[in-house]
Formats: sequence, C-alpha cells, structure tokens
Amino acid sequence: MSRLDFMISRLTAQRGLLAEAARLIADAPGCVFELGLGSGRTFDHLRQIMPGREIFAFDRSISAHPKCIPDGDHLILGEIRETLKFCAPRIPGKPAFIHIDLGSGDPTQDLITRAWLSPLIREWAEPGAIVLADRPLDGAFQELPRPPGCPKSGHMLLRAE
Amino acid sequence: MSRLDFMISRLTAQRGLLAEAARLIADAPGCVFELGLGSGRTFDHLRQIMPGREIFAFDRSISAHPKCIPDGDHLILGEIRETLKFCAPRIPGKPAFIHIDLGSGDPTQDLITRAWLSPLIREWAEPGAIVLADRPLDGAFQELPRPPGCPKSGHMLLRAE
Repeated sequence: MSRLDFMISRLTAQRGLLAEAARLIADAPGCVFELGLGSGRTFDHLRQIMPGREIFAFDRSISAHPKCIPDGDHLILGEIRETLKFCAPRIPGKPAFIHIDLGSGDPTQDLITRAWLSPLIREWAEPGAIVLADRPLDGAFQELPRPPGCPKSGHMLLRAE
Repeated sequence: MSRLDFMISRLTAQRGLLAEAARLIADAPGCVFELGLGSGRTFDHLRQIMPGREIFAFDRSISAHPKCIPDGDHLILGEIRETLKFCAPRIPGKPAFIHIDLGSGDPTQDLITRAWLSPLIREWAEPGAIVLADRPLDGAFQELPRPPGCPKSGHMLLRAE
C-alpha cells in the first residue's frame, strides 16, 4: 500500500467517522473543537455537516486555504499545548465534539503529542462528549464502533466516560 | 462538496490516472519526472506502480516524509522553473512520463505556473510521451480519455504530439 493509497483510505475513513460523530452529537448542545486547522479541509467539512454549530479551530499558525479560515473569534492561534490550557475565557462551554488531527508521521513526535494532549482533552471532554482522534489517547474513553464500510485507519472514535 | 470531499475525489482520480499512465508507457523506454515531490505521496506510489523505472523528483526544497525522499541522484532541488531548464546533463534521456502536481489553490499563481511550465514541458516531452497534469498546459498535447470510474477532477491526461 503506497502513501497515496494510505491517504485515500485515511481520508475516506475520516469522512465516515465525522459523519458518525455528527449523528452521535445531533441532540447534544455544545461547540466543536478542531485541532489543528491545517489546510482547513476538515474545518470546511465540519461546517457543512454540522451547520449552526460553533467551531473553534486551533493551530500554531495559519496555513489554511483563504476560504477555510475561521473568523477571529473562532480561530485560536499558538502552540495548542498552551492555547488549550488558557482558551476557556473565550469558549462558551464544553465542546460536544473534539476532532484531533495532530499526527506527524513520526512515531516519536506522536508519543510526545499524546503525552501533553491526553490530559488536556480529558479536561475539555465532559462525560458523553465525542472525540475523533487520529492517534490513541490516554484516559477514560470508550471506543465506539466504526460505521459499516469505513476503511481501516489509525482513527479512534471515542466517547468520554 | 467540502474540501475533504474534493480531496478524496481528487486523490482517487489521480490514482486512477496514474494507473492508466503506467499502462500507456508500459512498452516505452524512458524515465519518469515527478514535479513536485511535496509530501512524497505520489513518488511513493509511482515507484510501486512503475517498478524499475528511474524517477526524478523535483521540488523547491525537501518537505517529504523521510521514507519518501529519492536518493541524491534522483532528487533535483531548487526552483523548478530553473532546474527543469538546466538538469539535462544528469538525466539519461527524455522521460516517458511526466507527472505534474504544482497546483497552488490560487488561480493567479496557477496561471503564473502554467506560463513558465508549459514551454518547459514541451521541451522535455517528446512526441508520444505521457503527461498527467493537475492543471491545463499550453502546447501541442492530445487529451486522452479518462479510465472508467475515474472521478471528475482538474487533472488532464495528455499525450505529447
């Protein structure tokens, strides 16, 4: 399987899992966290499949397509390990859904990310909140079943306990 | 259609068109040009579907995954509008296939690229050479039919005349 094959499979899985997440939070209040914004591809998808939902996008700096950059109230710039700790004053309550796409392709970097990210997600994710993570997280999460037809990928669909 | 939908469709089209290109050049001698290397995703795919073929990858600088970086003889670093002009001494003959993935997402930048890139591709592509371009090119090219089931995308599969 080439990296092109892998990418197609991963993005297809991501789309299926985001649809499942949208279904799961349909009746739950709360905003959405997008970590990180990147090209803005998933942010663009989220705002289509979760219309009316406030989406806060986090990233170190802006590298998104100009049409996929949230307004200033919903774009939280800076190192996510810092901004996630201190952004509470501008967030209206806990998120119903957190999407995490911070995998680096380097296994050591990914372990570093997991170490600082997991406790921060645990703080933000109240019981019942849904998390879609591109890499494993530590903490009290229940892994949810993947929707039928969803390709294999590193993603984990989680419900906070 | 979100940018996530669009990306899945574009990569799926790219994979189908690369398979068609591999079929078309199966009996033709010649190397392969990959412009630009980027993440190395397509380079990784090309070396799997065109085994034994020399692949020269061009890019401004290295941003590829460490496992998808060609050896030094096959990696041509620098501005492609310059390197394509002066790389001939290190290339063993004209390429059988040129893959171009230089679209920027900005229509003005894409017109700038098309203006300098088209004549350079015309110089390298001998009659019969196959070109897969993510954006239109100027010059004497015959557009080839897309393989069945290939999603719509901006790609053009071309044969140099």
